[in-house]
Amino acid sequence: MNYREESLKKHAEWKGKIETVCRVPTDGREALSLAYTPGVAEPCLAIKDDIEKSFELTRRWNTVAVITDGTAILGLGDIGPEAGMPVMEGKCALFKAYGGVDAFPICLKTKDAEEIIKTVKIISGSFGGINLEDISAPRCFEIETRLKEELEIPVFHDDQHGTAIVMTAALINSLKLAGKKKEEIKVVINGAGAAGIAIAKFLMLFGVKDLTMCDLKGVICEGAEWLNPAQKEIAKLTNRTRLTGTLKDAMKGADVLIGVSGPNCITKDMVKSMAAKPILFTCANPVPEINPADAKEAGAFIVGTGSSEYSNQINNVLVFPGLFRGALDVRATTVNTEMMIAAAHGIANCVTAKELSCDYILPYAYDKTAHDCVAEAVAEAAKKTGAAKLS
Amino acid sequence: MNYREESLKKHAEWKGKIETVCRVPTDGREALSLAYTPGVAEPCLAIKDDIEKSFELTRRWNTVAVITDGTAILGLGDIGPEAGMPVMEGKCALFKAYGGVDAFPICLKTKDAEEIIKTVKIISGSFGGINLEDISAPRCFEIETRLKEELEIPVFHDDQHGTAIVMTAALINSLKLAGKKKEEIKVVINGAGAAGIAIAKFLMLFGVKDLTMCDLKGVICEGAEWLNPAQKEIAKLTNRTRLTGTLKDAMKGADVLIGVSGPNCITKDMVKSMAAKPILFTCANPVPEINPADAKEAGAFIVGTGSSEYSNQINNVLVFPGLFRGALDVRATTVNTEMMIAAAHGIANCVTAKELSCDYILPYAYDKTAHDCVAEAVAEAAKKTGAAKLS
Repeated sequence: MNYREESLKKHAEWKGKIETVCRVPTDGREALSLAYTPGVAEPCLAIKDDIEKSFELTRRWNTVAVITDGTAILGLGDIGPEAGMPVMEGKCALFKAYGGVDAFPICLKTKDAEEIIKTVKIISGSFGGINLEDISAPRCFEIETRLKEELEIPVFHDDQHGTAIVMTAALINSLKLAGKKKEEIKVVINGAGAAGIAIAKFLMLFGVKDLTMCDLKGVICEGAEWLNPAQKEIAKLTNRTRLTGTLKDAMKGADVLIGVSGPNCITKDMVKSMAAKPILFTCANPVPEINPADAKEAGAFIVGTGSSEYSNQINNVLVFPGLFRGALDVRATTVNTEMMIAAAHGIANCVTAKELSCDYILPYAYDKTAHDCVAEAVAEAAKKTGAAKLS
Repeated sequence: MNYREESLKKHAEWKGKIETVCRVPTDGREALSLAYTPGVAEPCLAIKDDIEKSFELTRRWNTVAVITDGTAILGLGDIGPEAGMPVMEGKCALFKAYGGVDAFPICLKTKDAEEIIKTVKIISGSFGGINLEDISAPRCFEIETRLKEELEIPVFHDDQHGTAIVMTAALINSLKLAGKKKEEIKVVINGAGAAGIAIAKFLMLFGVKDLTMCDLKGVICEGAEWLNPAQKEIAKLTNRTRLTGTLKDAMKGADVLIGVSGPNCITKDMVKSMAAKPILFTCANPVPEINPADAKEAGAFIVGTGSSEYSNQINNVLVFPGLFRGALDVRATTVNTEMMIAAAHGIANCVTAKELSCDYILPYAYDKTAHDCVAEAVAEAAKKTGAAKLS
């Protein structure tokens, strides 16, 4: 099927992938007096006295804003806020279908980081959580950091952390199959944009020690002049042997290659140069860094991609519905590292020892039990770390 | 029933009067590829090429933001954005139940007019219309005016115009019963806040010629020193005989008294001083300007109030669902005067000549056919005045 052509037709038929519905009786004078005036004055006053009650007397407890500025929509780049809406609506549809979360898409007509921060803060009282989406680097870093600091509800940038979490889940299960330990492996990440840097930071928090990043210009090494601010920061934490050169040099002897870069930049020879039982997560979309069949021929032990065309799709749809479900269920005030690591284990644990194979390292994105599993793990971690207001 | 007490209980049970639901299949790989990646790229690109397509390929065509800053919630005053949410959610529930409109509540954490205007503009690309709600005067005037000028979707301040429209509908039918003509009547409005001034302006656009406003300090007369800017403006258009004094003076010989003020400020004697067949719309909430039974005893021909406890409830719930339904259906770029006057006639016409009586001048707020009637009238007026993008 030509998905894009068919999808355009479907979108024209659907005229919207989500809708708002009424949950209360409205069919007479008494119903109106309870749901609206004069009765509604009482819950208003209860919230005025205690804002926390907005999580009990309105839909806030279950409502997440999906927010973009339209600057990094899929691989399409800066196509504008209105054009980002089909992706945001899709996300909201999945939030409900897989996590039971009421998500609402808001596409912002500004690219200014300060304006985005201010707008989200101004509207934040209506929401129980904020999911940032497809905002281009480096603005996405500051926007997320500031909002996490300044808001008392969970803030999550899916492109950074969703990707990092599902990648880590894939790594957890791959290492089980390869019989390797996270502390002993050599990991190379190709692509040092928002996703790559977030994956690197998260893998180190997870316990990976030896990690090197590459970009189009070569290996990220402390002191290199061409680094942008985010890359400079990550250079201090990665590539501790101060390797220079290209991706080809970095991949020699590596156990794991994570690609969040572009199509066809990895050759069979590069795969052959890796350590025994090499693991490749080549997530460039729609064409991966190396064709999975070629990678396998060159000796790859496990190959995952971003596409549903191959086995082992590494899809952050596995993360956000369950993560917010868990965070909302315990009225978490933030999404902390422990909650994110719990989400990664939650996803990984959904694949039983019996099911686990080199061609099945992750549950399917549409597997509802996987999302429930993530929600439970995240809620538990929030409680353990004191991030939960409800027990 | 104690509505307020019972309503608080219900709100705690409901945990939200609206919710967002998913309208598309999400139950497998193919479904995901159509509603989300990779298929979704195609509708995104279609909108990038023509933003108008956001009204065809996403839910924007049917989506209205219900926006407040929490400063004038019901009669409760400035109780804050979170505390305003039960009213906004109620409004959204009614939008769907009576108009089929997907409305979403956004309560803003700012009272600064410029910030409110900017925020609404920044989020406007996600919506097909903007319903402003319970924003205190005088900021509400500037906010609405500016947003109407600067946005190409319908903007409507319900507290001003919704009230003015339903009041006009009540007047249309009352004049039929009294056998009087709008051009010949003398109208007095008590209460020169946002609602009162909006009603005055609208009645004059509708065709009322002799109109005098009063406030707590007395009759609004050009030149009075105590007038605020909005009152100064309206003083130039009303009270052309330059009457001074109090409400009591203004009511002498008046055909119509409209109260949007406070409880019990009208006496039986004041009603007795009015013209023959006096019409009183005493809408102070929860206690009207004069008890309807007292008004009737003093000779009132027709009495309407804001409360559902008496007959003739003058309720702006009759306006907004149908008004936005009609505007959205023809992709109106604004809500102009003709559309609002059409809405008033739409409401009035829902009461048949056979049904019409001094105790039944307006349809009930929960009468779905009344809302359909308003929608049709508004859509027709939008088309006639060139405000409609769709025919």
